[in-house]
Amino acid sequence: MLREFPLNKPGLHPFAELIGLHFTTIADGHSQCDLEVNGKLMNPHNVLHGGVVYSMADTGMGAALYSRLNEGEICATVEIKVAYFAAVSSGTLVCNTRVIHKSQAIAVMESEIENDGKLVAKAMGTYSIFKAKRE
Amino acid sequence: MLREFPLNKPGLHPFAELIGLHFTTIADGHSQCDLEVNGKLMNPHNVLHGGVVYSMADTGMGAALYSRLNEGEICATVEIKVAYFAAVSSGTLVCNTRVIHKSQAIAVMESEIENDGKLVAKAMGTYSIFKAKRE
Amino acid sequence: MLREFPLNKPGLHPFAELIGLHFTTIADGHSQCDLEVNGKLMNPHNVLHGGVVYSMADTGMGAALYSRLNEGEICATVEIKVAYFAAVSSGTLVCNTRVIHKSQAIAVMESEIENDGKLVAKAMGTYSIFKAKRE
Amino acid sequence: MLREFPLNKPGLHPFAELIGLHFTTIADGHSQCDLEVNGKLMNPHNVLHGGVVYSMADTGMGAALYSRLNEGEICATVEIKVAYFAAVSSGTLVCNTRVIHKSQAIAVMESEIENDGKLVAKAMGTYSIFKAKRE
Repeated sequence: MLREFPLNKPGLHPFAELIGLHFTTIADGHSQCDLEVNGKLMNPHNVLHGGVVYSMADTGMGAALYSRLNEGEICATVEIKVAYFAAVSSGTLVCNTRVIHKSQAIAVMESEIENDGKLVAKAMGTYSIFKAKRE
Repeated sequence: MLREFPLNKPGLHPFAELIGLHFTTIADGHSQCDLEVNGKLMNPHNVLHGGVVYSMADTGMGAALYSRLNEGEICATVEIKVAYFAAVSSGTLVCNTRVIHKSQAIAVMESEIENDGKLVAKAMGTYSIFKAKRE
Repeated sequence: MLREFPLNKPGLHPFAELIGLHFTTIADGHSQCDLEVNGKLMNPHNVLHGGVVYSMADTGMGAALYSRLNEGEICATVEIKVAYFAAVSSGTLVCNTRVIHKSQAIAVMESEIENDGKLVAKAMGTYSIFKAKRE
Repeated sequence: MLREFPLNKPGLHPFAELIGLHFTTIADGHSQCDLEVNGKLMNPHNVLHGGVVYSMADTGMGAALYSRLNEGEICATVEIKVAYFAAVSSGTLVCNTRVIHKSQAIAVMESEIENDGKLVAKAMGTYSIFKAKRE
């Protein structure tokens, strides 16, 4: 159940479109998204910019947590730490994220990012949960 | 002195171009870069994606550290933690970064990101320093 | 104003006593605590255990935040990241902490730890703020 | 194989003795240590001080990494982030740590801390690896 999560619909998530991120799973406190490495995402050393990997984790954490929120709740990133294990220069990135802790107001997620099956980064982050304002 | 840092030249830093990041200072262990918030950088809530803010910090840390490296040295991100203080929906972001510790093999930087003068995020990160391979 | 913060009174903060931590300032979103390095705090390499430095930051963050809480509010550590810049083997440690962001439910603090005037570690951490249960 | 790791011997690791930490496993990039919660480790709210949990992770990471070092190599903590999921007031803490990445100069470990079988904290940290100076 997605509860309005903008799963890949054109126009719904501009930044995801800009970097080519797509979701393949959002359910039960878990999410999976992927992305094809391409020339627009590179840094000056012709290596994938770390911000792309980070963005997969941040987006993936939001999605994983959304699948566990109650009606009328939204969430926001409080902080994320990401550690890099290897440079990426081509291929597919897959980011698996799961909720590892959730209380009423705080949730903690972790993401593992693989490049063609090899673990290249891991992230752990905190989100706050709050009631959406009625519009 | 930039020592080949790809300061804003078209084609040299594709991901910086993709998100609209430009440097205004790189010197003496300090860097400053800025970015105009625009619709392509938004998340589904019409708020700036956290990955953009993170990318400013990551890029800014590399630049700040480059200004302190010796001839023939390069660096890579080991890990970065970023904390968010406010949502951003428009205006200009400015990211100031400085080296707060540097040994032979490790450096630590911190970045403060302001949106129209208001502190909206802070990051602290670790880079490794190593000799570039002769080509 | 301390609002029941157990400033150095014997028996009030057992772990602070165990490691020899004392507060010298708690006010206006800032705290300062210090500690004399001694043999009981060492690791097998005869260097101060990193957990002691961390404990100064964690305790200092709680104290700095307490000075900004409203009546009936308490706080708890959500997460802390600490980075070490130098090994410590003797002398005095002083930890200065300040609140760098505070909303209704979340606060972010940073701590700088000096050993005889030299910066040896820096930490950034998140606390949650909530209403104390009536007893 | 412990390669000089001071496994629980009185006098070898003063801070571990001070807080009551004991190792039960150090092998193949994994370590396990435990600790009985007691009154000396409490904060003013009569809850275990977060520095104790952190110290288990930091000590456990060093031990897990030592089991993977080569002859003549030593390591030091670069940075650790710890996230707390529940307060601890009694019982036994068990900290399991494993190396999740290791290059020549850098290693990344993660630790999970359980209190009587319940996950109460998780940490991810970076260590540097270097040659020990000949004495």
